[in-house]
Amino acid sequence: MSFEKLQDRINELRNPTVAGLDPTAALMPPALIRGAEDTAELYEKYCAAIIDAVCDVVPAVKPQSAFFETLGARGSETLFAVARYAKSRGLYVILDAKRGDIGSTASAYAEAYLSEDAPFDCITVNGYLGSDGIAPFFETARRTDKSLFVLVKTSNPSSGEVQDLDAGGAKVYRRVADAAQLTARGETDKYGYTRVGFVAGATYPAELAEIRGAYPAAFLLVPGYGAQGGGAESVAAAFDARGGGAVVNSSRAILGAWKKSGGDGARFAEDARREALAMRDALRAAANL
Amino acid sequence: MSFEKLQDRINELRNPTVAGLDPTAALMPPALIRGAEDTAELYEKYCAAIIDAVCDVVPAVKPQSAFFETLGARGSETLFAVARYAKSRGLYVILDAKRGDIGSTASAYAEAYLSEDAPFDCITVNGYLGSDGIAPFFETARRTDKSLFVLVKTSNPSSGEVQDLDAGGAKVYRRVADAAQLTARGETDKYGYTRVGFVAGATYPAELAEIRGAYPAAFLLVPGYGAQGGGAESVAAAFDARGGGAVVNSSRAILGAWKKSGGDGARFAEDARREALAMRDALRAAANL
Repeated sequence: MSFEKLQDRINELRNPTVAGLDPTAALMPPALIRGAEDTAELYEKYCAAIIDAVCDVVPAVKPQSAFFETLGARGSETLFAVARYAKSRGLYVILDAKRGDIGSTASAYAEAYLSEDAPFDCITVNGYLGSDGIAPFFETARRTDKSLFVLVKTSNPSSGEVQDLDAGGAKVYRRVADAAQLTARGETDKYGYTRVGFVAGATYPAELAEIRGAYPAAFLLVPGYGAQGGGAESVAAAFDARGGGAVVNSSRAILGAWKKSGGDGARFAEDARREALAMRDALRAAANL
Repeated sequence: MSFEKLQDRINELRNPTVAGLDPTAALMPPALIRGAEDTAELYEKYCAAIIDAVCDVVPAVKPQSAFFETLGARGSETLFAVARYAKSRGLYVILDAKRGDIGSTASAYAEAYLSEDAPFDCITVNGYLGSDGIAPFFETARRTDKSLFVLVKTSNPSSGEVQDLDAGGAKVYRRVADAAQLTARGETDKYGYTRVGFVAGATYPAELAEIRGAYPAAFLLVPGYGAQGGGAESVAAAFDARGGGAVVNSSRAILGAWKKSGGDGARFAEDARREALAMRDALRAAANL
């Protein structure tokens, strides 16, 4: 689905949170481990329980492909099963796969994850290869009414090594954003957003504000909230005047909420829901939603 | 395996070719289609026959992950089966997956594809996120004696949009190369190569020559030969004075050689071998091997 559908749901729930689904061994509650046959089944049960716990609180989830890929073919099955389940519960599903390639290879990635049958609404894309690496995703997304987020300014400490380089008066991340925006051909939805959004981290609030101001048609995916150090005040700048145009991701804070309660994590789903509600309230205030 | 093992094999065969394994519907010979149950089986049979046909001619193969990912979990199984088979035939296996992420996510990708059990010797990595996105691959590769290629200057027409931007007197691709080189910590093998090689396209011979000269410790993966327009003369600059330090990829020219012979492709493997031999001879001359 296009970002319009995501924004509709954000408005209904008054919540611009995306819950990251990053299953790792360290996050699995002992209470759940006892009942699972293998890691893939464990990840699937865990993600399904999180989805049940937050699907009436958050509009979107973001499975992280890498953690499923570590399990090989079983992981691929599990990723698709989790995404299908999330869609059945009404969630917008963003696949965080950061794919980036060109020509027929990029088209193959787009077909794998943005075709009509694929249970994903959106994918993250790395634009280092230029518009050749973005356009094939856009073309597929256009055909299937889906969308993509291009990495512009990422939330990690070393993101500046490449992205902040000054390239003739504008930083590299601005040039990537320009190329991504061109790819979207100016086609906007009822809210004024294109199909090609940007990733811009909460850990760089000044750059986030600059990006919001310079690209009003870009829907933003904002990582780095919570565990990575960005707070509600740092993400306020991601939203436009109507309180829209952005989703803020939290992975570990929601998924690992049970660790703060102590015990064997038997109530990990309730803990995740409580954390998601707290984040919703903080973001409502930040976005004036 | 480190690049030292790859260079050893290049020297034995006097051939710096890597055969790209990019299976697509259009490349499947009708003669083979008739006997296969599904696309995954077809791709596996096809790749296995190509491997048998070229394994005493070329030192390495490069499966392109995207084409396997379009088949979901079956594709993942097939990718691993093809890679295992290639290794059993003595080939160095480079997974072209262009992964790029940070921290625990990058470590998960590295674990998925560069762990001891994974049937890959090397992976391609996108460095747009800076050294945070390269270091986790390096750390895993170091533990398992494997290696990686970081995208520096790619072969596609729009690669200059980001990579050629002038960033304070040096182009962006040089800054990425600098960051990648730093990650390798100066640890070199008996030939003087580090574990962190670069991708540099044959379609930009001047930049290829510049990169070769500036980074003598970087092993190069050179795409863009053949179908994309780079000839033997354009890749000559990729090799160092000893005729080493680079592998040149050809995917469609070898895989689709049967299309030039006409017919139903019953002899696609022999056609691929003949094309690989012709490429070997052209590269021997170019590299003075």
